[in-house]
Amino acid sequence: MNDEAIIEEPREDEVRGLDRDRVEAIRDAVEARDPERLNDLIEPLHPADIADLLEQIGGQERAELLSLWSREIDGDILSELDESIREEVIAALPPEVLSEAVRELESDDVVDILEDLEEPQQEIILDALEDADRVAVEQAMSYPEYSAGRLMQRETVVAPEHWTVGDAIDFLRSEDWLPDQFYHVILVDPRMKPVGNVTLGRLLSSKREVKLRDIAEESFRTIRATEDEADVAYLFNQYHLISAPVVDGDDRLVGVITIDDAMNVLDEEHEEDILRLAGVGEGSLSDNWFETTKQRFPWLFVNLLTAILASLVIGLFEGSISRIVALAVLMPIVASQGGNAGTQGLTVAVRALATRSLTYSNVGRVIGREIAQGVANGVFFGLIMGAISYIWFGQPMLGVVIGLAMIINLFAAALAGILIPVGLEKLGFDPALSSGAFVTTVTDVVGFFAFLWLATLILL
Amino acid sequence: MNDEAIIEEPREDEVRGLDRDRVEAIRDAVEARDPERLNDLIEPLHPADIADLLEQIGGQERAELLSLWSREIDGDILSELDESIREEVIAALPPEVLSEAVRELESDDVVDILEDLEEPQQEIILDALEDADRVAVEQAMSYPEYSAGRLMQRETVVAPEHWTVGDAIDFLRSEDWLPDQFYHVILVDPRMKPVGNVTLGRLLSSKREVKLRDIAEESFRTIRATEDEADVAYLFNQYHLISAPVVDGDDRLVGVITIDDAMNVLDEEHEEDILRLAGVGEGSLSDNWFETTKQRFPWLFVNLLTAILASLVIGLFEGSISRIVALAVLMPIVASQGGNAGTQGLTVAVRALATRSLTYSNVGRVIGREIAQGVANGVFFGLIMGAISYIWFGQPMLGVVIGLAMIINLFAAALAGILIPVGLEKLGFDPALSSGAFVTTVTDVVGFFAFLWLATLILL
Repeated sequence: MNDEAIIEEPREDEVRGLDRDRVEAIRDAVEARDPERLNDLIEPLHPADIADLLEQIGGQERAELLSLWSREIDGDILSELDESIREEVIAALPPEVLSEAVRELESDDVVDILEDLEEPQQEIILDALEDADRVAVEQAMSYPEYSAGRLMQRETVVAPEHWTVGDAIDFLRSEDWLPDQFYHVILVDPRMKPVGNVTLGRLLSSKREVKLRDIAEESFRTIRATEDEADVAYLFNQYHLISAPVVDGDDRLVGVITIDDAMNVLDEEHEEDILRLAGVGEGSLSDNWFETTKQRFPWLFVNLLTAILASLVIGLFEGSISRIVALAVLMPIVASQGGNAGTQGLTVAVRALATRSLTYSNVGRVIGREIAQGVANGVFFGLIMGAISYIWFGQPMLGVVIGLAMIINLFAAALAGILIPVGLEKLGFDPALSSGAFVTTVTDVVGFFAFLWLATLILL
Repeated sequence: MNDEAIIEEPREDEVRGLDRDRVEAIRDAVEARDPERLNDLIEPLHPADIADLLEQIGGQERAELLSLWSREIDGDILSELDESIREEVIAALPPEVLSEAVRELESDDVVDILEDLEEPQQEIILDALEDADRVAVEQAMSYPEYSAGRLMQRETVVAPEHWTVGDAIDFLRSEDWLPDQFYHVILVDPRMKPVGNVTLGRLLSSKREVKLRDIAEESFRTIRATEDEADVAYLFNQYHLISAPVVDGDDRLVGVITIDDAMNVLDEEHEEDILRLAGVGEGSLSDNWFETTKQRFPWLFVNLLTAILASLVIGLFEGSISRIVALAVLMPIVASQGGNAGTQGLTVAVRALATRSLTYSNVGRVIGREIAQGVANGVFFGLIMGAISYIWFGQPMLGVVIGLAMIINLFAAALAGILIPVGLEKLGFDPALSSGAFVTTVTDVVGFFAFLWLATLILL
């Protein structure tokens, strides 16, 4: 750590991220193959910004930049890199740079990098670690993917529960090595079972003779190593945790999870939900067009099937359409309103399930509300659309038909928008991933059928 | 704070949230009007879970529960409550309970509560505060909404930059009052300008004679009080900050923002983006059907207009449809595939803009990728749908028409899906809010027009 000259530097000059000018200058330096200028431009950046830079430039430029600058890549930059290009960057590093980079990281960060790599690259990184770190990382990798065990850092700061503040401070001062960031001293019993957390602020503000147990935090939660990382993120968010001890099946302390890890998971979960709702699978902005085409394809294919199903419904009424062409003109409106209303409802439901605010206690009330809302908006838009159709085509009964179809479809949309995500969740599927296809199928089929069937019944 | 009996309690019995049985038992106790049983059931819950309970039960039940239990509502519960029901709960509290509740909160939490209340309730709360707190809260309220100044807590822990570790520890021990949570001692110059951060871990592990400036963190960022809270959340997430000093226009320290506040903002921003993308405005699960109807209405209305526009396009080709009814059967497929492809692209673009990964440096490359992807999927689905239509209706040229229309529309979808959100962002609009309507309009209009126009040209 750079202990000098921190205070003296004018803080206003701090580089606050990538701006357009700097990126342009970096590009010029790469093109001029000028490693010194390149280093002057990149070096003042935060590792997170350097990672962004590598993600945002094109593949060709990235390769050229790395060929000039790969010796400066450190562990922090690797940690910040998006997994979609991490493999590529790691492959470009000289072996000694890679060894140096992973050695300086804490075990949870090494695990995070390792998870997304192929076997041969994993081996290279494991070989680069010192023995103790290697064992720690391999143990972490033995926990299931997306579990607290993978997320935790194994380096913990513990104190026996009978210690005083003075004991703890003396111990901390005598330790050569402490984690980069820690927020609690974890109190443990003789079997290494965590029994309480003392915040560092409390430790610092208490007299030396005070017992640690007397200043432990009121609220204290441990996390099982096998717990799902999404549940961990929920706990941190719900209970405003800063750090929490992780225990094994025997309740013994095996690590600690800190809020920045939880914030990361929360961020990823959100991102996943948004992209899944839109039918975009895994994917990153640095993926090329071919990968992107493959990612977008499955959902478009599912959508094609539902669209064909809807067309089959329309096909049932070819005779009616050939007699009243206005039906063909108006029918997409009914389906489209239904699709949008359904998407509104399902998005609210998916989010409420994800944040655990839609539970057993209120699901009945929310279903009722959605139905009432569907009927209300259905009546509203039924009236509007009925009037418009009457004016447009001069047939009052056509207005009645589309009005009724609109009410029916917005009712169906409301029902599908809440029942489908709730049902999928109950069956153990991710509602974000598949609700959209089901709901759209319902609103397309019901929309076209209700409109064309009513028209056939009433108008012909 | 409860300093006793923390260690002795069996940790496994800790209440980890609301389960179905407890909610049922609480409902029974409310119905039986049994305040003691109710208290036994609610009291062990974390304030966040009590807030969830109040949000999840119905309005009627909530009123009954509050009539039995309002005296136990404290500041922490009020802080956790969703703003949609906070006003209602505050109105139900006896004045002395409300005073007590707000007095125990820190200034940023009071501001957070105050922001969402109507004038008369704001007055009641301000009156309940002690003078110093009232001034602090009023000063915070003078910053713009959604600014760092509203988010920050004014209580800071500072030390002159020339102090030693021993000076700092002695000072902290002698202070009667310290914030609940703090993670750094902020070093300030004589003009109260923050010049560095010392983590508490570093403070605890250093010898008494070490100078604070020598153990300051390498990376240090201050935040302007007028900065937007979304930017603050970005900074915390990007640079893994735990707490950051907030400064006024003269660079003087006025407060501190901690990671939990930033995590909250990040969470809200995500939520807002998801709901806006789905055309659901502000809204909460505890809103009733009437409020929900009003919230959903505007987007449905916009959608109706775009659907009518699409219908007008169809109307141009009434003659063609009346001669080939198959056109009416197939045309929704072209529009639907375009709509879905456009939504995929715009969601990726909106997210990338929100996370600042789509920038000047890569926008050209991403546009190129989206177009290539659109053409590739267009050709793919064009071929599939062309073949299906040929088999279905036995007309080879109908297959050619729908195939071409599909390529055109997926190309248009790709273009609209990236250019519309990027353009809206550039013009200063929130792309999450309005991209959907524009993109769907493009894909509907282009989809119907391309298909029906090609059909008219080629088949008739």
